Amino acid sequence: MPPSAPSTTAAYSADYSLRERLAQRYREVRAHSLALAAPLSPEDQCIQSMPDASPTKWHLAHSSWFFEAIVLQPFAVGYRPFDKRFAHLFNSYYESLGPRHPRPQRGLLTRPSLGEVHAFREHVDAAVLSLIADVDAAAWESAAPLLVLGLNHEQQHQELMLTDILHAFSCNPLLPAYRRAGPSSMPPTAELPAMRWLPMPGGVTPIGHTGEGFAFDNETPRHQVLLPPFRIADRLVTCGEYALFVADGGYQRPALWLSDGWAMVQAQGWQAPAYWISPGDPRAPSAEWQEFSLRGVRSLDTRAPVSHLSFYEAAAYAEWAGARLPTEFEWEAAYGTSAITQMIGEQWQWTRSSYDPYPGFRPLCGAASEYNGKFMVGQLVLRGGSSATPAGHSRGSYRNFFPPAARWQFSGLRLAKDA
Amino acid sequence: MPPSAPSTTAAYSADYSLRERLAQRYREVRAHSLALAAPLSPEDQCIQSMPDASPTKWHLAHSSWFFEAIVLQPFAVGYRPFDKRFAHLFNSYYESLGPRHPRPQRGLLTRPSLGEVHAFREHVDAAVLSLIADVDAAAWESAAPLLVLGLNHEQQHQELMLTDILHAFSCNPLLPAYRRAGPSSMPPTAELPAMRWLPMPGGVTPIGHTGEGFAFDNETPRHQVLLPPFRIADRLVTCGEYALFVADGGYQRPALWLSDGWAMVQAQGWQAPAYWISPGDPRAPSAEWQEFSLRGVRSLDTRAPVSHLSFYEAAAYAEWAGARLPTEFEWEAAYGTSAITQMIGEQWQWTRSSYDPYPGFRPLCGAASEYNGKFMVGQLVLRGGSSATPAGHSRGSYRNFFPPAARWQFSGLRLAKDA
Amino acid sequence: MPPSAPSTTAAYSADYSLRERLAQRYREVRAHSLALAAPLSPEDQCIQSMPDASPTKWHLAHSSWFFEAIVLQPFAVGYRPFDKRFAHLFNSYYESLGPRHPRPQRGLLTRPSLGEVHAFREHVDAAVLSLIADVDAAAWESAAPLLVLGLNHEQQHQELMLTDILHAFSCNPLLPAYRRAGPSSMPPTAELPAMRWLPMPGGVTPIGHTGEGFAFDNETPRHQVLLPPFRIADRLVTCGEYALFVADGGYQRPALWLSDGWAMVQAQGWQAPAYWISPGDPRAPSAEWQEFSLRGVRSLDTRAPVSHLSFYEAAAYAEWAGARLPTEFEWEAAYGTSAITQMIGEQWQWTRSSYDPYPGFRPLCGAASEYNGKFMVGQLVLRGGSSATPAGHSRGSYRNFFPPAARWQFSGLRLAKDA
Amino acid sequence: MPPSAPSTTAAYSADYSLRERLAQRYREVRAHSLALAAPLSPEDQCIQSMPDASPTKWHLAHSSWFFEAIVLQPFAVGYRPFDKRFAHLFNSYYESLGPRHPRPQRGLLTRPSLGEVHAFREHVDAAVLSLIADVDAAAWESAAPLLVLGLNHEQQHQELMLTDILHAFSCNPLLPAYRRAGPSSMPPTAELPAMRWLPMPGGVTPIGHTGEGFAFDNETPRHQVLLPPFRIADRLVTCGEYALFVADGGYQRPALWLSDGWAMVQAQGWQAPAYWISPGDPRAPSAEWQEFSLRGVRSLDTRAPVSHLSFYEAAAYAEWAGARLPTEFEWEAAYGTSAITQMIGEQWQWTRSSYDPYPGFRPLCGAASEYNGKFMVGQLVLRGGSSATPAGHSRGSYRNFFPPAARWQFSGLRLAKDA
Repeated sequence: MPPSAPSTTAAYSADYSLRERLAQRYREVRAHSLALAAPLSPEDQCIQSMPDASPTKWHLAHSSWFFEAIVLQPFAVGYRPFDKRFAHLFNSYYESLGPRHPRPQRGLLTRPSLGEVHAFREHVDAAVLSLIADVDAAAWESAAPLLVLGLNHEQQHQELMLTDILHAFSCNPLLPAYRRAGPSSMPPTAELPAMRWLPMPGGVTPIGHTGEGFAFDNETPRHQVLLPPFRIADRLVTCGEYALFVADGGYQRPALWLSDGWAMVQAQGWQAPAYWISPGDPRAPSAEWQEFSLRGVRSLDTRAPVSHLSFYEAAAYAEWAGARLPTEFEWEAAYGTSAITQMIGEQWQWTRSSYDPYPGFRPLCGAASEYNGKFMVGQLVLRGGSSATPAGHSRGSYRNFFPPAARWQFSGLRLAKDA
Repeated sequence: MPPSAPSTTAAYSADYSLRERLAQRYREVRAHSLALAAPLSPEDQCIQSMPDASPTKWHLAHSSWFFEAIVLQPFAVGYRPFDKRFAHLFNSYYESLGPRHPRPQRGLLTRPSLGEVHAFREHVDAAVLSLIADVDAAAWESAAPLLVLGLNHEQQHQELMLTDILHAFSCNPLLPAYRRAGPSSMPPTAELPAMRWLPMPGGVTPIGHTGEGFAFDNETPRHQVLLPPFRIADRLVTCGEYALFVADGGYQRPALWLSDGWAMVQAQGWQAPAYWISPGDPRAPSAEWQEFSLRGVRSLDTRAPVSHLSFYEAAAYAEWAGARLPTEFEWEAAYGTSAITQMIGEQWQWTRSSYDPYPGFRPLCGAASEYNGKFMVGQLVLRGGSSATPAGHSRGSYRNFFPPAARWQFSGLRLAKDA
Repeated sequence: MPPSAPSTTAAYSADYSLRERLAQRYREVRAHSLALAAPLSPEDQCIQSMPDASPTKWHLAHSSWFFEAIVLQPFAVGYRPFDKRFAHLFNSYYESLGPRHPRPQRGLLTRPSLGEVHAFREHVDAAVLSLIADVDAAAWESAAPLLVLGLNHEQQHQELMLTDILHAFSCNPLLPAYRRAGPSSMPPTAELPAMRWLPMPGGVTPIGHTGEGFAFDNETPRHQVLLPPFRIADRLVTCGEYALFVADGGYQRPALWLSDGWAMVQAQGWQAPAYWISPGDPRAPSAEWQEFSLRGVRSLDTRAPVSHLSFYEAAAYAEWAGARLPTEFEWEAAYGTSAITQMIGEQWQWTRSSYDPYPGFRPLCGAASEYNGKFMVGQLVLRGGSSATPAGHSRGSYRNFFPPAARWQFSGLRLAKDA
Repeated sequence: MPPSAPSTTAAYSADYSLRERLAQRYREVRAHSLALAAPLSPEDQCIQSMPDASPTKWHLAHSSWFFEAIVLQPFAVGYRPFDKRFAHLFNSYYESLGPRHPRPQRGLLTRPSLGEVHAFREHVDAAVLSLIADVDAAAWESAAPLLVLGLNHEQQHQELMLTDILHAFSCNPLLPAYRRAGPSSMPPTAELPAMRWLPMPGGVTPIGHTGEGFAFDNETPRHQVLLPPFRIADRLVTCGEYALFVADGGYQRPALWLSDGWAMVQAQGWQAPAYWISPGDPRAPSAEWQEFSLRGVRSLDTRAPVSHLSFYEAAAYAEWAGARLPTEFEWEAAYGTSAITQMIGEQWQWTRSSYDPYPGFRPLCGAASEYNGKFMVGQLVLRGGSSATPAGHSRGSYRNFFPPAARWQFSGLRLAKDA
């Protein structure tokens, strides 16, 4: 027997197990997308409330097209697209993959129907699972990382499905709830601990992905950053704290704001975070501030982390509080510190870092090169992950990014200070 | 027996018969709206492709709200609105009836669902039919004309349901058909008769509604207009004729256009009527011009009346043809002339008349005063009626009106000339 | 001697006298333009405060280019343009005469300097006066009417020079006066006579230019219009009367407004006529309403005709006053009536007539065909003439026209009523 | 005699000498502004060609107002403003100093006239020079740094006077020259040396102002940055090199561009740097590319550094060239390296660094706090200085900043690479 046989068998076993695990993860991630869409009617899933948001149905189709374009067409021998016209409809921004339906008109795509999009998903799922099972080892080497990319991509769209439908529902005077169920984040009697400042030593700090497990290209390469000592808050700013800023005239005092932020406050008439409902609003009469959420209109939970802030608002609050936002490097340096809380899973946290490439950054190859790199200007980095982020999707090195005026994400803030 | 008894009985009978006829017509008109919506999915019925157009579902709800606001709330004792919030959602432009959901956001109303809108219609239908049967004679005197207004109003929205869904579908690269069935307007072998110029004597001409049957307030009062002699075409301009204008560089020659029209041609890149598909369009490859229609993509029927023109295009074509558009008074004077054809039921016909009030015009009373009069500036009059106009809805004195750049209506032209 | 000799001599004399009179009028009109510009600095004459307005210098140059393009180049043998590039800079909207500098960028033309524009005017003046003196009789026949057109054209720009600089100065927080001198329109002790309603019989009425003297093409052909009897106010609405409308909440009551007008009130935040200065305005502190005018900030003269209204405001005022605007035909029918006042020379008067062509209207030939006809859509007719209109320029058949939202003209209103 | 007497005298002398030197520098800087404006007519100095640019006259007045607001009003006892209304007209963006004339309407300020602005400058100059001579020592301590700030501020506006008038003249089809004189940057026979890559070691590098001499607050605090080794070009990219990028389809290949940059290319129709004139342009017919400059239309100097690029274009060129832009830290680390050229005085150089605050950054106090800090979002850092930058104004730590789409500055690029 050739000496390589045993190791081949071992590799095969390992490979088999890997493939099986990936297939299982594929099924779970794909099923989760449908589960998120389940509370929504076909009408709900069709609409687009602003150019930056997309319909639920479009998310369901686009994440399937992504597998088709990135994995199936290059690697699945004999694969036939479900409908050749879908590449035009469901390509988001990949210039190398051809022209696209205009982004602001995604809400006009009543056809294909939701049923057809479900059939598209099933068609892609069957082909992907078949590819996982059958593709030869050489192709597997190339395809597997792209499959994993596709799953992480779909998870990003899972969060967007929630942020986008929340925006859409906020435009409906009936203020419908995405779903009524679900506990609030804290038991009503819980007392909020006072915020504490954690001292951090600074120094030469490794930043970026360690290389274990999946990461997006924008988290690499891992490199050293020299940080001065600083202090960082052990928890996020709450709605109750932010309400004090509002009550103190925060939205009327230009000295607290960056110039572009103040222009936005005036142009858009901002008075509070995006989905706060002011006392007396005819859509949901109340004497108190309320919040519109995925669970409908609720009393403001003063202990919960504030959300749906733009970068401008986060920075203005920090100024008002006599503090500042942490840089993304400070945030990452603080990640894993014992006393720190609410790092992942509560709210995305605006940092005081523009979204620039890391030293030595190289985008992925092929169409995936357009995934992150081409957006590295005009955006700010958010760190952490929100309650809408799929479990296990984020990590300490994860770099989310949005333009500074974006408010429809689950975005709050954590304070920092110089040492 | 009191002398009035017999006549009372007679009046009662007449009244009873009138009520029964109106109830029957109500049922027919209302059922027709649903029949028009039937080929469309809930998703199709939800979307709005531009601020000027409305979702099918919105039309279905708005025409029901109109009965509720104009007839049921004033006259149906004890009537309870289906949902008080609907007044805000489905009021179109009646300032006197309170604030409204912003027009450009009608497509975001996934809730109420289509099913709820159907239930709303049934609720209104039951109440209206009950009112027709039971309301006392005094109230009937006031309510009956408003009911008739409501039915004519609903018929207007029936046409808009078709024009609006056609526009929405034209924005979908799949170019779906509203319905495939239906013959084309002429048998393929029919020869198109040459256009003939009909001489008209002019003179003092009665204009406006005669008073028999229903008319909108803008058709009144009937009055005399002094017309010079003129000539008018016996039929509409066809697609084949209009294609000659296109081929002759009609859209590249400013001398043919009104100044605002030429600005529009350049700003919008107009090259042909709204739904013409140029040779080589990737959405529907062909070597010839085609047309997108309610029946999907079709070869251009050169004998059919051209449609989906703006006023600017109609006027430019007339200039190119060495003719002009008729005034609305010339059109009305020619109505009923023996040799003239295609007056009603083919295409709305742009006239060379701005939409000004008739001498002595008085709007209706109450909320209905906002129906027509407040739009009498900045619009042009169209006469006739289109294949999308419900049968029996239009008439010789009917004044339709749209801004001069509107192209999503079934709007064509008939030529005229000075004598 | 040939029998024609004497008559030739006579014709020559007549012709000579005509030419001399025209030369004299040319000199006067041209000098008046410069006189109007005289109070303004080169900086003042250079700026453009909105796309609809033009710099003084541009008016001075454009009106000269008009003579060059319409008269000198066709008829002055051997004429050499002052600067060939000026055709591009100073063509307003004549498509047949080539491409143009974009209208909104006229204020960027610091070069040619004002001095060069003066030299351009002198160059044109010399050539025109030479042509008047020397051109042969055949060319004279064609050239003379175009010269007269050019003078009337220049007079129109004389009024625009005033309306445009008033708008420009209104944008300067210093609120400079065009010139301080000049009496107010009425001695301060004069009492304002009560407005009287003049009854007019209606009937078949000749409308349009009689043919004596100059008229623009849009005033022709003279034709008959059938008018119902009506009543018309013997004078214009005053600032004092309009102030009552303002004080009565006129700008807050949608029921008084046309739909487009109400949208404008809300979008633009209109609260009063264009140049009224509300009490407390920091630019010119006062406890009373004031008015910004060519003579600077003044107390509101309650007896003076109200000015700087849009059509929408004029129509809303009329509705509030229980009256309406006259049609342009009613206005013309009333012109010359003995008891009527303030017909010409006070304020342009919005009519309830859209600017449509008269029956049988034919534009002028050549480039002049673009003078009026191509604007006959989307505008409303104003009649009369204002205090800024050059003396002798307007007449009873004169049709001025502006879009309904225009407020920077000297535009007021006169009321009318059905009989 | 008190022991301090001698030292007082010495301090007085030193102070006297310092004051005298500052007065001298004040006179020079102020005179230079007028010298820069001298080639321009009053009309030229009045216009504003886009909201981002300002009129020359406004620059002259604003830089004077800055001294008035920052130095004279706080420190010059009994100072009377030249005209109290000028604070409203000539405040740029200082929220703490009151409301301002809208930025896009600066070109409408024909009043005050240029002559009055000159008088305003003289009024301020007299007061400043008097203050320098006479103010007591305690106030001098506070006033002197603000005077120096005011001079550096005026120098920044000196460069803007040139960039802004270049933009304004580029909008005039006559393409006037600011001044004809001046040699081109290189003798025509000079050969361009090949670009060389200079290796840089990286490591912990001090960044920020050393503390000697004036610096803006945004250059502080000096701090350590850890840099990887890298390579940097010894000279700037030339017009000739950039022309190869244009010829190679650089503006047609989305893969080379950041996403926002590609959107800009398409929306604005960019085909080349801002003032390049394509072959065949009717304004300046030529068979070759030309450039519009302060000296008018010139042949493209292929050896001169390319200018008037947006950040997007600079980044796309670098991508095309297989390189990247340096970070602002790399640029500063390379500053002073022996072999490097064209660091200051040729073109501002876009870096791959967003304009974020340095660690520990603190803005200046008082109104000057608005000078830099509030703009630290949405902008990119440029380093170096251009031929339009006043001599001695820039330095190695200087941080200029503009939004990524800005093209009207003298902005080019230098390439860098990873080691």
